[in-house]
Amino acid sequence: MKILVTGAAGFLGRRLLRALSSGKAGFSELSRIIAVDMFTCAVDDPRIECRTGTIAESDFVRSILSHDVDLVFHLAAVVSGQAEADFDLGMRVNVDATRSLLEACRGVRNAPRFVFSSSIAVFGGPLPEIVPEDLAVRPQSSYGTAKAIGELLVNEYGRRGFIDGIICRLPIVAVRPGTPNAAASSFVSGIIREPLAGLDTVCPVPLDTRLWISSPETATNNLLHAARLATSALGGVRAVNLPGLSVTPAEMIASLERLGGARARGRVRCELDPDVTRIVSTWPGAFDIDRPLRLGFTADRDIDSIVGQFIAEHTAPR
Amino acid sequence: MKILVTGAAGFLGRRLLRALSSGKAGFSELSRIIAVDMFTCAVDDPRIECRTGTIAESDFVRSILSHDVDLVFHLAAVVSGQAEADFDLGMRVNVDATRSLLEACRGVRNAPRFVFSSSIAVFGGPLPEIVPEDLAVRPQSSYGTAKAIGELLVNEYGRRGFIDGIICRLPIVAVRPGTPNAAASSFVSGIIREPLAGLDTVCPVPLDTRLWISSPETATNNLLHAARLATSALGGVRAVNLPGLSVTPAEMIASLERLGGARARGRVRCELDPDVTRIVSTWPGAFDIDRPLRLGFTADRDIDSIVGQFIAEHTAPR
Repeated sequence: MKILVTGAAGFLGRRLLRALSSGKAGFSELSRIIAVDMFTCAVDDPRIECRTGTIAESDFVRSILSHDVDLVFHLAAVVSGQAEADFDLGMRVNVDATRSLLEACRGVRNAPRFVFSSSIAVFGGPLPEIVPEDLAVRPQSSYGTAKAIGELLVNEYGRRGFIDGIICRLPIVAVRPGTPNAAASSFVSGIIREPLAGLDTVCPVPLDTRLWISSPETATNNLLHAARLATSALGGVRAVNLPGLSVTPAEMIASLERLGGARARGRVRCELDPDVTRIVSTWPGAFDIDRPLRLGFTADRDIDSIVGQFIAEHTAPR
Repeated sequence: MKILVTGAAGFLGRRLLRALSSGKAGFSELSRIIAVDMFTCAVDDPRIECRTGTIAESDFVRSILSHDVDLVFHLAAVVSGQAEADFDLGMRVNVDATRSLLEACRGVRNAPRFVFSSSIAVFGGPLPEIVPEDLAVRPQSSYGTAKAIGELLVNEYGRRGFIDGIICRLPIVAVRPGTPNAAASSFVSGIIREPLAGLDTVCPVPLDTRLWISSPETATNNLLHAARLATSALGGVRAVNLPGLSVTPAEMIASLERLGGARARGRVRCELDPDVTRIVSTWPGAFDIDRPLRLGFTADRDIDSIVGQFIAEHTAPR
């Protein structure tokens, strides 16, 4: 079995590679992984071949798609804040490169499974408290628009039989390690990660904003599940709103205090950022996840398990 | 005022040009119309400049967009049957050319009003009997997919302020004069037009299939209304399901008999075409048109008025 991962040096990409490499992902006859990113992927597995370049160049895209690839995880994207700041870059990477990748898949021997990482940012405008399966997507950001276009392409290439496509609309994935990024949702990780590292941080949205989040482990497991699922079970509706947990920054900060102590909690300051609030407030805070759960996707148990996962993985023992 | 019309030699394009040229469209300071099509537009108005070429070439698109255009009607498209038969052509014209046109609009002095003719073919999959405003689009054809992508682009370019966009999801427009075309819906006109011309014809779908139709006159009036409407009234939801009439082929044929006689009715034979039925049966048969009506869009009164309009305009007096 041969797997291609775009955005392989990214946060989820690296977790995915580790899971695939460890054998825990359940792909028994894994022979090769093509790990693609603009940045070098540091991996220690002879089956993983790292390819550095930008998928915005269609020649590069063609060069990474061999005719015998079985499975593609398309994770690479320009994140929401950056796509909003640079419209053309966002279109080039989030729309055009996705299409190049799909086009290159037409040359593959057997239509490969294509797992497309989309986002709840495809939704927007006036939203019901709980978003149902069949709600119209009305993206209010360039990132969300591009992901919605990518979804239509994956659906169509799937319907045509060029690929065997499935679309995972990822919740906000938190808690991410490392440093803040240009995603409008960066603070969702920041308000847990920075205080635990002894740093002051800011919550830029109202404390009662409903956020739909998933731990990195659950998000990774769900992407792997999407790769294994029989797509016939999707009944033609290839987009799945991945299960998440509906929490507010207030609930997250309370969990931080429970698991990280009062000093950590004291390091979060509230300071509204209208730009971030505008984008984040257009995202749904909760979804009807009856179908995704029936399809075998999973959710995190509660906010403490998410914060606990980060503490266990990324902070020094206390 | 300067207006650009793509697909100007097409059926709706020609009606639109006539309405604009006659002054009945209500644009009082009309100085120039750029009429663009692959085919020559035969018009007799010194204000109309015909430009022949394909919008699939971005150089041509840039050449037709002057910096002082106020209003664009983007009607040009590869129709449904043809886009299904030739995937790449459909993508090139229905997706890429729409994007080129939108890109060219970024160079226009003031963000022009951009009326995008979309289609009920953006919908598909399991549908409620009456399609509500906020139902997810799940196109089941290449044509519908491309129109749905075009809608996302028009929304995004509108949100960015590059254009002042509005999307008209046209019903099946019938009765069209002339000869059958490659649209899957071609028969909807054919079952009225051909018998009235003394020709035998075929209804390729079940007689109780619900069809959402609009007369050419109503469709043209609604496109013109979209060009004049204050887009602030749209409340950020730029896509409008244009009003139509929900009828079955059986009801259409009964109207044909009432207005055209029993001999005309006898010229329609039923013969299922699985390809046409597959595409047409995924289109909605009725919509909730409360909002479009409140916005000032109009519907035809009944099927006899639609058939009567065709007889009055296109058949010799009996």
